[in-house]
Amino acid sequence: MPRKPSQADEATRIARMLKAAGVLEKQHGVTVGPGDDCAVVSRPDGEVILKTDVVVETVHYLAEAAPHWIGWKAAARVVSDFAAMGAQPRHALVTIGMDPQRDPKWAESVYRGIGRCAKRHGFCLVGGETTRVPSGSFLNVAMSGDVGPRTMLRSGGKAGDVLAVTGRLGGSAAGKHLRFEPRLAEGIWLAEQRGVRAMMDLSDGLASDLPRMAKASGCGYSVMADAVPRNRGCDAAAAMSDGEDYELLLALAPEAWTKLASAWRRRFPKLLLTRIGALETPGFQSGLSGKGHDHFIDQ
Amino acid sequence: MPRKPSQADEATRIARMLKAAGVLEKQHGVTVGPGDDCAVVSRPDGEVILKTDVVVETVHYLAEAAPHWIGWKAAARVVSDFAAMGAQPRHALVTIGMDPQRDPKWAESVYRGIGRCAKRHGFCLVGGETTRVPSGSFLNVAMSGDVGPRTMLRSGGKAGDVLAVTGRLGGSAAGKHLRFEPRLAEGIWLAEQRGVRAMMDLSDGLASDLPRMAKASGCGYSVMADAVPRNRGCDAAAAMSDGEDYELLLALAPEAWTKLASAWRRRFPKLLLTRIGALETPGFQSGLSGKGHDHFIDQ
Repeated sequence: MPRKPSQADEATRIARMLKAAGVLEKQHGVTVGPGDDCAVVSRPDGEVILKTDVVVETVHYLAEAAPHWIGWKAAARVVSDFAAMGAQPRHALVTIGMDPQRDPKWAESVYRGIGRCAKRHGFCLVGGETTRVPSGSFLNVAMSGDVGPRTMLRSGGKAGDVLAVTGRLGGSAAGKHLRFEPRLAEGIWLAEQRGVRAMMDLSDGLASDLPRMAKASGCGYSVMADAVPRNRGCDAAAAMSDGEDYELLLALAPEAWTKLASAWRRRFPKLLLTRIGALETPGFQSGLSGKGHDHFIDQ
Repeated sequence: MPRKPSQADEATRIARMLKAAGVLEKQHGVTVGPGDDCAVVSRPDGEVILKTDVVVETVHYLAEAAPHWIGWKAAARVVSDFAAMGAQPRHALVTIGMDPQRDPKWAESVYRGIGRCAKRHGFCLVGGETTRVPSGSFLNVAMSGDVGPRTMLRSGGKAGDVLAVTGRLGGSAAGKHLRFEPRLAEGIWLAEQRGVRAMMDLSDGLASDLPRMAKASGCGYSVMADAVPRNRGCDAAAAMSDGEDYELLLALAPEAWTKLASAWRRRFPKLLLTRIGALETPGFQSGLSGKGHDHFIDQ
């Protein structure tokens, strides 16, 4: 899908918009506001996780894509954000926009894809809205859910931490961008392990997302480009910049790596967990190539 | 804005889609699933209310509409759904879709409108997403919030109950559809009053919405058309079918009406609360004219 540079990245744009709104977000028990994978809200019995996301025809999927994979993708993107916090999605609200000429069976098939994701990842649908749009279609999914024993943020990393990723990166445009498996069980498990300090999901590509984690943690970074696990047919630049990997990026205390890696192999023997670099002192940036996606432009 | 008949109303379509999804919605503590104004989810410390809604350019607002009123409308529609449950919205997630050529200041102004609604109605923004769309724009707002002492549903009415509405109906297309005031304080207050049994907000027009409440309550209805309070320039049919009133419709025990009406006048002296009819035994339907909106077609 087409890509072009943006004038300001999404985080900057959203910060500007929130400033325009003039609403202090740290009220009503808000623990984590805009800027991380999900929002975290405190309630007397614990924290609630909230996240919304949208996929748009021609931007996130093509008109001819199988509708149940569109539904899967829309839901799985939100699940992936929960995974990045080590949190469990529970309740989903769905909004479908579509042109009135579209066969209603299209929307049913979209819902079938959402339903499959719901059963697989332990959430349920509590509300749905449909609306007419002049042309094309979109699908917004908002979820609330529960934190695990520890809520992982992007900001917990320290200089010297090991950086690791799940799975293999790159090549999403070949179809994986629709049919990916969000790393929910893995994210919840990782959040429980000693030494894991920061986590996020790779939605825009390592080249975009790692600098965000490093910045949130007040660190620099170094990546061993050859170590980045790649999908077939991808070079290092593609693996870092194709985007839509929906794998997890984590930072952990260096002394915890060996034990974590071997526990991982026992728990998730079919999925790679690969050390790719380290968080560094602020200002040190090395080893990334490519540009990554920007949500506003292509994501 | 244009209107035409739909093949199946939104509730039917959504029921079909949820069936397609194959996900039992009564799990994970879901007290109220799809079909009421909001979803209700039980947690150990009480119930959480969830709602999502979207407004789409050319369908819910025109391209040239003032962006801060678009933001207001998108947020206020969700607040109105909370009002109908007697619930307090607390946390909002916003998704903006817009074509990349649009001035970023447009989105900031949209957020300014959301922010004004947030300050006025006691919620805050916890997350924002932006996405590119091929043309036009849309704005999805999802909120979570707290119930009051009693959660009002559409289904609590009984045959013989008095039907009443807040404010005046009709004429929304003249601008009120953007600049309406959701009846949040009124809804929360009404939910606390003795005898109030069912409530919903009038988003599609009395002619569409009252039959929904009656059906959910297992009742018929009768409306005294001349009693329906109308905005200037509206006849009874327009008041019942223009839609986008965002006033509250309630059903209450007949013996409670007199006391409620006088307590209302003391508490909300500037806003009408008008008796317009009654819930009847099933099958009895009288006094409605016009067709109302359908979300999928024009709402």
